[in-house]
Amino acid sequence: MDDRPIGVFDSGVGGLTVVKQVLDNLPNEGIVYFGDTARGPYGPKSPRVVTQFAVENARFLLSKKVKIIVVACNTASAVALNPLRERFDLPVVGVVEAGARAAVARTRNGKVGVIGTIGTITSQAYRRAISALNPSLQIYAQACPLFVSLAEEGWTDGKAALLIAKEYLKPLRKQGIDTLLLGCTHYPLLRKTIQMAVGEKVVLADCGEEVVREIRSLLSERQLQANATTEPDREFFLSDVPHRFQETGERFLGRPLGNLRLKRTEPRLVRGLW
Amino acid sequence: MDDRPIGVFDSGVGGLTVVKQVLDNLPNEGIVYFGDTARGPYGPKSPRVVTQFAVENARFLLSKKVKIIVVACNTASAVALNPLRERFDLPVVGVVEAGARAAVARTRNGKVGVIGTIGTITSQAYRRAISALNPSLQIYAQACPLFVSLAEEGWTDGKAALLIAKEYLKPLRKQGIDTLLLGCTHYPLLRKTIQMAVGEKVVLADCGEEVVREIRSLLSERQLQANATTEPDREFFLSDVPHRFQETGERFLGRPLGNLRLKRTEPRLVRGLW
Repeated sequence: MDDRPIGVFDSGVGGLTVVKQVLDNLPNEGIVYFGDTARGPYGPKSPRVVTQFAVENARFLLSKKVKIIVVACNTASAVALNPLRERFDLPVVGVVEAGARAAVARTRNGKVGVIGTIGTITSQAYRRAISALNPSLQIYAQACPLFVSLAEEGWTDGKAALLIAKEYLKPLRKQGIDTLLLGCTHYPLLRKTIQMAVGEKVVLADCGEEVVREIRSLLSERQLQANATTEPDREFFLSDVPHRFQETGERFLGRPLGNLRLKRTEPRLVRGLW
Repeated sequence: MDDRPIGVFDSGVGGLTVVKQVLDNLPNEGIVYFGDTARGPYGPKSPRVVTQFAVENARFLLSKKVKIIVVACNTASAVALNPLRERFDLPVVGVVEAGARAAVARTRNGKVGVIGTIGTITSQAYRRAISALNPSLQIYAQACPLFVSLAEEGWTDGKAALLIAKEYLKPLRKQGIDTLLLGCTHYPLLRKTIQMAVGEKVVLADCGEEVVREIRSLLSERQLQANATTEPDREFFLSDVPHRFQETGERFLGRPLGNLRLKRTEPRLVRGLW
């Protein structure tokens, strides 16, 4: 038994969609979340800078005595997972491997589409992860950078979102994919629009459930599960409190942020509690 | 005469639209540009974090021996101009005052619309700057956060951009504005679409020309103009080379980036030359 919290970081608020899954499915576990809202989004940024930020974020979580680190950002998972595993002596879970497993499990015709940020798609990390699981699959990848802003702005439905989604997804649709992997923590918020744009026969896969399964089996293998006798702490830290944070955060977390107490801890960091 | 360069900073590549104006109109002046591509965009971020970044950026430009600093980012101009002027002992020019002058000069019916990032609009800096010039004007402000991503993605024309623009600008149109101030360095790239959305009778004002006028008169007042005998240096520094930088940079600068040589200088900084 190990009551230390699970550490989760993301470039901003997108990773709260992963936290939501952990809250729902592993209610005994404590969480320390770090959102790099001062320097995010990471999507368009180079692997070098994203890796540097990821290492700094992981170091911060380690200072909070976490037992594992979940990289709840596809772009950071795609480019920085190995550097993190080389540097730090604790289990590091990324969303790319989980997403790849979700897609491979769902396809029937062997044609899988993957969408994500420019950084994620350029890295080809999903292509490698999917091929490692099943080399016979055909993979079609497409960067959809505007989806992040649409999700953060709350423009997830409506004509403009649908037009943009149709434009991005047209090439994937033409290839006859039967599964589309949402390779960005922001995209589940656009699920309805993406489904309409790609056609209702295409199955949408995301990383959420698989990540929880991976965390659960990892905790069990290494006997790191929390003791269920006390209410676990859920803390989150941000490098900035951006405008509209409360509204955007609640949309991503899928519940009220509750007794949110923001508190400055160290330079450039603010702290909150669920 | 003073051959030291003009320092220009922005949260990313948007400020290159201001550099374009300086290159076109003050061809004898050297330029050192800093684009904070690793930490931008600044639009949604808090005044505290934007001010901290602005001070760091200004310090970097000072280390390059600039004679004045141009804050070519509306969000940073809106929240950090006074902190910069208090801290540093050289002239600091922002785009907000220039933009306000442009709008005030153009309106006939006294109803001015202002659009910008969430940070710029929330700060009310344009409202204050316009009222200071003419307190009788009616000012209608609207944040248009998706415009930045549309401009960076190159989706400046087409149905989706027009739909989004119409949605944002509907309230301003209803108010009967005759002048619309583009309060963000990214927005001139969307000029055509914005014009269509707001109606062709509305005059679009931007900061570009007025900033150049302000720089010119400041250099002349303080006798800081460059000597025209040698070809001036134009250097730019970035805190990251994001994906698609060349393409986006050239779109914003309105010309090829030319003999672009990116060179690492110090940690997290890359350097290029036009």
